[in-house]
Amino acid sequence: MADHVVRYFEDYTPGLTVDCGTFTLSAEEIISFAKEYDPQPFHVDPVAAAAGPVGGLIASGWHTTSMMMRLLVENFISGETGLGASGIDEIRWPRPVRPGDTLRVRAEVTGARRSRSKPDRGIVTSAMEIVNQDGATVMTMKATNFFKTRDQPG
Amino acid sequence: MADHVVRYFEDYTPGLTVDCGTFTLSAEEIISFAKEYDPQPFHVDPVAAAAGPVGGLIASGWHTTSMMMRLLVENFISGETGLGASGIDEIRWPRPVRPGDTLRVRAEVTGARRSRSKPDRGIVTSAMEIVNQDGATVMTMKATNFFKTRDQPG
Repeated sequence: MADHVVRYFEDYTPGLTVDCGTFTLSAEEIISFAKEYDPQPFHVDPVAAAAGPVGGLIASGWHTTSMMMRLLVENFISGETGLGASGIDEIRWPRPVRPGDTLRVRAEVTGARRSRSKPDRGIVTSAMEIVNQDGATVMTMKATNFFKTRDQPG
Repeated sequence: MADHVVRYFEDYTPGLTVDCGTFTLSAEEIISFAKEYDPQPFHVDPVAAAAGPVGGLIASGWHTTSMMMRLLVENFISGETGLGASGIDEIRWPRPVRPGDTLRVRAEVTGARRSRSKPDRGIVTSAMEIVNQDGATVMTMKATNFFKTRDQPG
C-alpha cells in the first residue's frame, strides 16, 4: 500500500486506466479456498481435476474474483472514498486460472456521473481485466461503484 | 450433503427451483474474509463501519457470493456433472448483509439448451436469489453453467 492513491469521484474520469499489480495462486491456496466456498472436483481434487474439463486443477472463479478485489481495493478503490458497489455485470472467465499463473489486474473507468439524489457521491462504471503471463485474458468484469465527491466529502 | 442430488443436463428444466438452504455470517467471519479479499473500512472495521455508508459492519459482496456458491455446489450444481461456468451476469446487492443475518439461497433454471459443438454437454442459465430473515432480497445473480448430458456422459 506504499503508493496507495486516494481518489475521489472527480478523479475517476472515463479512460483512466490503473494497473493494479499481480497476484499468483498456489495449488494449496486454490484447494483451500475451494474447499470452503466452491468444492467442485476440478477446484479441490488434483486427481479428479486431471481427468476433468480442462485437464488439471483450476482456481474457482470466485477465488480469482476475490483476489482481484483485494488489488482493486489497494490500487483503484480507495477505502477513504469508496461507498460500495451496487452491482457487477458480465463476469467472464474465458480461460482457466492454474496454480502458479501470474495474473495482472487492470481497471479502466468507462463512465462517471454525479448522483442526482445524493450530491455527496458519484457513480462510476469500470471495466476490469485479468491477463496471465502469456498475455491471455482469464477474466473480465464490469462494476458500478459509488465514491464520495471531493467538494462535498460529507 | 445427506440429500445431495446428482442432476444431469436433462434434469435442469426451465422453471426448476431449488431451495439451497441457509447460511449465516458472524462479525468475525465477515472481518476475516474481508481482511484477506476486500479490506474496505465497512467490511473490516466495526468502528469505521458504524460511521460508514450503511451504519454498521456489512459483509463483502464477494463473501456473500462465495457462501452462496458453496450452497449451490452442495444443492444445485452437482460436482459429478458440473463442467464449470462460462459467465455471471447482473450481480446485485440491493441491501446490506449484516452479522447474524439468516440468508436463504434459491436457484431457478431459466433456460437450457444442448451444446451444438460439444454434444456431451448442455448449457443452463439460472437466476439465483438470497433472501434474509425479513424476507428482503440481499442479492440476485444470473449464471450460465455447463453440465454433462445423461445420454452421453463422456
